[in-house]
Amino acid sequence: MRRNVIVGQSGGPTAAINSSLAGVYRTAKDRGANKVYGMLHGVQGLLQERYLDLSEYITTELDAELLKRTPAAFLGSCRYKLPEIHEDRAVYEKIFGILDKLDIEAFIYIGGNDSMDTIKKLSDYAIVTGHPTRFIGCPKTIDNDLALTDHTPGYGSAAKYIGTSVKEIIRDSFCLEYSKGLVSIVEIMGRNAGWLTGAAALSKGEDCEGPDLIYLPELPFDLQSFSAKVKELLSQKPSVVVAVSEGIRTEDGTYVCELGNSVDFVDAFGHKQLSGTASYLANFIAGEIGCKTRAIELSTLQRSASHAASRVDILEAYQVGGAAVKAADEGDSGKMVVLQRLSDDPYQCGTEVKDVHKIANDEKLVPREWVNAEGTGVTDEFVAYVRPLIQGDVSPVMVDGIPRHLFRPYNL
Amino acid sequence: MRRNVIVGQSGGPTAAINSSLAGVYRTAKDRGANKVYGMLHGVQGLLQERYLDLSEYITTELDAELLKRTPAAFLGSCRYKLPEIHEDRAVYEKIFGILDKLDIEAFIYIGGNDSMDTIKKLSDYAIVTGHPTRFIGCPKTIDNDLALTDHTPGYGSAAKYIGTSVKEIIRDSFCLEYSKGLVSIVEIMGRNAGWLTGAAALSKGEDCEGPDLIYLPELPFDLQSFSAKVKELLSQKPSVVVAVSEGIRTEDGTYVCELGNSVDFVDAFGHKQLSGTASYLANFIAGEIGCKTRAIELSTLQRSASHAASRVDILEAYQVGGAAVKAADEGDSGKMVVLQRLSDDPYQCGTEVKDVHKIANDEKLVPREWVNAEGTGVTDEFVAYVRPLIQGDVSPVMVDGIPRHLFRPYNL
Repeated sequence: MRRNVIVGQSGGPTAAINSSLAGVYRTAKDRGANKVYGMLHGVQGLLQERYLDLSEYITTELDAELLKRTPAAFLGSCRYKLPEIHEDRAVYEKIFGILDKLDIEAFIYIGGNDSMDTIKKLSDYAIVTGHPTRFIGCPKTIDNDLALTDHTPGYGSAAKYIGTSVKEIIRDSFCLEYSKGLVSIVEIMGRNAGWLTGAAALSKGEDCEGPDLIYLPELPFDLQSFSAKVKELLSQKPSVVVAVSEGIRTEDGTYVCELGNSVDFVDAFGHKQLSGTASYLANFIAGEIGCKTRAIELSTLQRSASHAASRVDILEAYQVGGAAVKAADEGDSGKMVVLQRLSDDPYQCGTEVKDVHKIANDEKLVPREWVNAEGTGVTDEFVAYVRPLIQGDVSPVMVDGIPRHLFRPYNL
Repeated sequence: MRRNVIVGQSGGPTAAINSSLAGVYRTAKDRGANKVYGMLHGVQGLLQERYLDLSEYITTELDAELLKRTPAAFLGSCRYKLPEIHEDRAVYEKIFGILDKLDIEAFIYIGGNDSMDTIKKLSDYAIVTGHPTRFIGCPKTIDNDLALTDHTPGYGSAAKYIGTSVKEIIRDSFCLEYSKGLVSIVEIMGRNAGWLTGAAALSKGEDCEGPDLIYLPELPFDLQSFSAKVKELLSQKPSVVVAVSEGIRTEDGTYVCELGNSVDFVDAFGHKQLSGTASYLANFIAGEIGCKTRAIELSTLQRSASHAASRVDILEAYQVGGAAVKAADEGDSGKMVVLQRLSDDPYQCGTEVKDVHKIANDEKLVPREWVNAEGTGVTDEFVAYVRPLIQGDVSPVMVDGIPRHLFRPYNL
């Protein structure tokens, strides 16, 4: 590389997205890039000419290590969808004008489905106009729902956190005894794809039975059969733990989290409150069975818990960042780096590049055969697929008892 | 010791309560105890003659290490308050009958305020009846609200988890930009005492501003001044993070979490839903300001996150377990082990025993001078007090990517 590289982060935060950023920076520098710019808040920030020079923040090897361990998008993120080229050519002209001004040779975008749409459109525009900048996507999403890649960086760390936390919740749930038992509902992210919710099964082992029921969003959810199953379980054990996706829907497509709003609960200002899936189900079960219930949302913690990240995930995120720069340097454009699993045991995984047109806006769901017949749990195949992705730890750099992150002022 | 020891766990689970159990077991065995029994689900289980022989579970040094790293009460817990002696003497006769049958020399109870009430009553009964069994309390509570002890085992690990998680939440909150800003409300345990909520300030450091506002339950909470402060903060920064205790109350003593129920939100079965403090405030702020809001409950995770435990806490928990047995062996009864801080820097802490009558049913709150004048944050003195308690880590024993715990079947 002789000229400059620009890199951006887009979509929801993860524990591994900054490791990809560190990988992009390192490989770009190693391959001779002059400057490595970071877009602030992705393409949306770039359009406002907000960017920084990464070498001002990654000044030492220690900074790079801290960056790998820093959760959430270091550069800031956005949820911005580029217009179609024929709809608003001015936006494209503006972006390419900025790229020319910054003398950009390679544009790397770290993100999920929507972000790959950005890579697709920008690379298409470059081809049409004969512009030399190359556009490469770098996969990132805790949801693990990207097509053509074995899995996505960010997923392994979220899965490890979910497996660990659900195991701790199960332990906690057996402490106190309640006359009619205790039902704990754990709500996990993933509106359409059940990869994260299924990861609750990782808690199962010689020392833990795992969750009793797991409901993925891929299958319709039936309140009555759910209640019947919980009742049956409570006749066998004092504590029942259920993992549910935030996106479970009834047969007619209604989100379970919307059912709670059939009774209008509005605050003093007339705003409707959306109660969560777990809290709806906890109330439902309390009403049906009269037992003690508990609703636990893993919330944003599951995507930002760098303190419990998976080593495999952080290293692969770093690897795909480097592979994205390499692909651009070797002349590729309009491609996304994918992870290709070479073997399960021992686990081996390499990278390739695939046409981004086949990835953008697509969604990879959990295959039906990886869910049990009743739709209340995942199979051993599911667990065997995820298990290698949660191996190993990344020791946080602890300063005075708390993990240290790489600092960036928010007001840039 | 020549005869047997029995140990029980009582009240809410913590990440360190099993380390105290390991300490009790080790010291009892080292001092010559014949058998070390564990009550299942505390005194409530003991009354049903449910107990186990701990040496059947702690068979190796590795088992002891796993036990120290296992969250929540290994023996099961209870929230059982003994009647006054004059109210129901039969209960006492039953307990002492079981103790005689098991040839118990020392009775150790690991718990908080309510559990110390049990130690007080049982030791009083023993004195009155001339019974030789000795009763010693071993402090445990994430709430840190026990009198006469510098702090309580369990608190340090919860504080470390809260500081770490709040820091990750703050990082996450700056990723995406919202036109009117983002307000994240983090709800933390501690109904009356603000020790846990104040620990959110541990997230502050060179790389993080910490939460913008912290509200402890010790001071009355005013919705309008809260809203005004958030508005002011949003004019300066895009993301505002607020830590609130689950127990904050308005001037007239109403819990904030109850305000949401002024509008009757009942499920299909007529059960009133108690929405949480964070979700009420998130809706309130959304209504007042129109910004994006997020409610995050740290929930049971904050008390059971052994994967992120504090080394100081786990070691001190082990130490107080041993000290409880030593005290009983040396003839003490009706006492609780307390931690006495000898110096802050370097941090040094020893154990003593104090009369349980001065501890039971009392509650140690955060002193007013450790909260800032406006009541929106804790002082440097608060942080200096907590900081030593979160130092160091306890590496989980990882098996296939997930922490291993010591196993006990729940159906004993």
